[in-house]
Amino acid sequence: MPQFRVVLVEPLYEINIGFACRVMKNFGFKELCLVRPRTSITETSKIFAAKAHDILESAIIVDSLEDAVKGFDLKIGTTGKPAGPRNVLRSVVPPWHLHELMRCKGRVALIFGREDIGLTNQELSICDVIVNIPTSEKYPVMNVTHAMAVILYELSKVHIRPKAKLASARLREVAFKYFSDILELVGFPKEKEPKAKLAFKRILGKAFISQKEMHILLAFLHKVYLRLTPHVGEKKLKRPPR
Amino acid sequence: MPQFRVVLVEPLYEINIGFACRVMKNFGFKELCLVRPRTSITETSKIFAAKAHDILESAIIVDSLEDAVKGFDLKIGTTGKPAGPRNVLRSVVPPWHLHELMRCKGRVALIFGREDIGLTNQELSICDVIVNIPTSEKYPVMNVTHAMAVILYELSKVHIRPKAKLASARLREVAFKYFSDILELVGFPKEKEPKAKLAFKRILGKAFISQKEMHILLAFLHKVYLRLTPHVGEKKLKRPPR
Repeated sequence: MPQFRVVLVEPLYEINIGFACRVMKNFGFKELCLVRPRTSITETSKIFAAKAHDILESAIIVDSLEDAVKGFDLKIGTTGKPAGPRNVLRSVVPPWHLHELMRCKGRVALIFGREDIGLTNQELSICDVIVNIPTSEKYPVMNVTHAMAVILYELSKVHIRPKAKLASARLREVAFKYFSDILELVGFPKEKEPKAKLAFKRILGKAFISQKEMHILLAFLHKVYLRLTPHVGEKKLKRPPR
Repeated sequence: MPQFRVVLVEPLYEINIGFACRVMKNFGFKELCLVRPRTSITETSKIFAAKAHDILESAIIVDSLEDAVKGFDLKIGTTGKPAGPRNVLRSVVPPWHLHELMRCKGRVALIFGREDIGLTNQELSICDVIVNIPTSEKYPVMNVTHAMAVILYELSKVHIRPKAKLASARLREVAFKYFSDILELVGFPKEKEPKAKLAFKRILGKAFISQKEMHILLAFLHKVYLRLTPHVGEKKLKRPPR
């Protein structure tokens, strides 16, 4: 993946500088650069940075956007004001367009504008690509750190961490078998069986049922099955496989 | 798409209440409900709500989470602390799992926890499904309004396709009651009951089980129940409600 620098242009509020650090650390980003901040880094900034004070302390302060992005391979601007298709300067992509970027190597600057007026046309013209978050037309202007949360989230979600283990096909089959047998034992209408089995499969499928959840479900189905067939010796029955 | 209510449980900071309104309006959400707020709605809240003061002004305040979600078909909790695959209570889905939900109809509560301790286990147990935003292991704890921005963004970015009606809370309760009764009838180990019930809730929750699927599941549970209680006259038993 690329090496990222987050750039805040002329931030106005100490709270936002702090929140920016926190959001960056939440999603594994480290390098912050402030261009001509219009506020100091204060005790308030530290409070809002919370456990991301390391990012706040190592933030770089520079005099111009050109200095902030010097030597960077790709400059990504952000705007809350996309324009029509004829406006090339503000020709925008949505945040998920950046997924493909994560497969690249290089130095990438992610540039966020001022709280009051965003990035100027001159600054947008420096950027290689402009990202816009699709929002409600009734109130498209996001706080800069919420916009940052959305964009860093989109970037970082490409690296998906391991999830709970999915229930195996083998256990799924065992569950379907139990379900089938129980349908028969309880005298479920024959003509409705196929639909019932499919619904059962879909419910487990859509849930991405985990191995753990499946074991609990099987223990339940096993008990029901035993109870419905009292003539079968419990010991003879195979326990659901673990 | 469903009708959403955003619920903030015992919010601590006036800034966050304001920011929550702004984020909601940015993504087209309208209904905010505060459970026992630990701060007042102040001038500061209004400043941070910015142009979303209408949402702030119409926010509902209630005394309990139960009141906040009463009558809602699906309750979605959020947590910054996912647990291992063996923990059913905190069995989580990522925000993009909710895309599928946007094709459903029904009333959905999106529940965000306290800034300091999130949602309690008791509150999580009320929820049908739990969302967790994948974050850096070094600092997983997000500010509640940044987490909200990410989740509302994920929900709103879906272009809506055909719809299925969500199973209602009423039918969900009927299913849980049958499940509970059957657990008892089959002699399921008492100490394992709470976990089994929770797993059942999570499976249906994660699947966004539809009204149609629920009716099939209920017909099944009903048959099982009848078979397990042969002394009860079938005619006397109430059919699952349609």
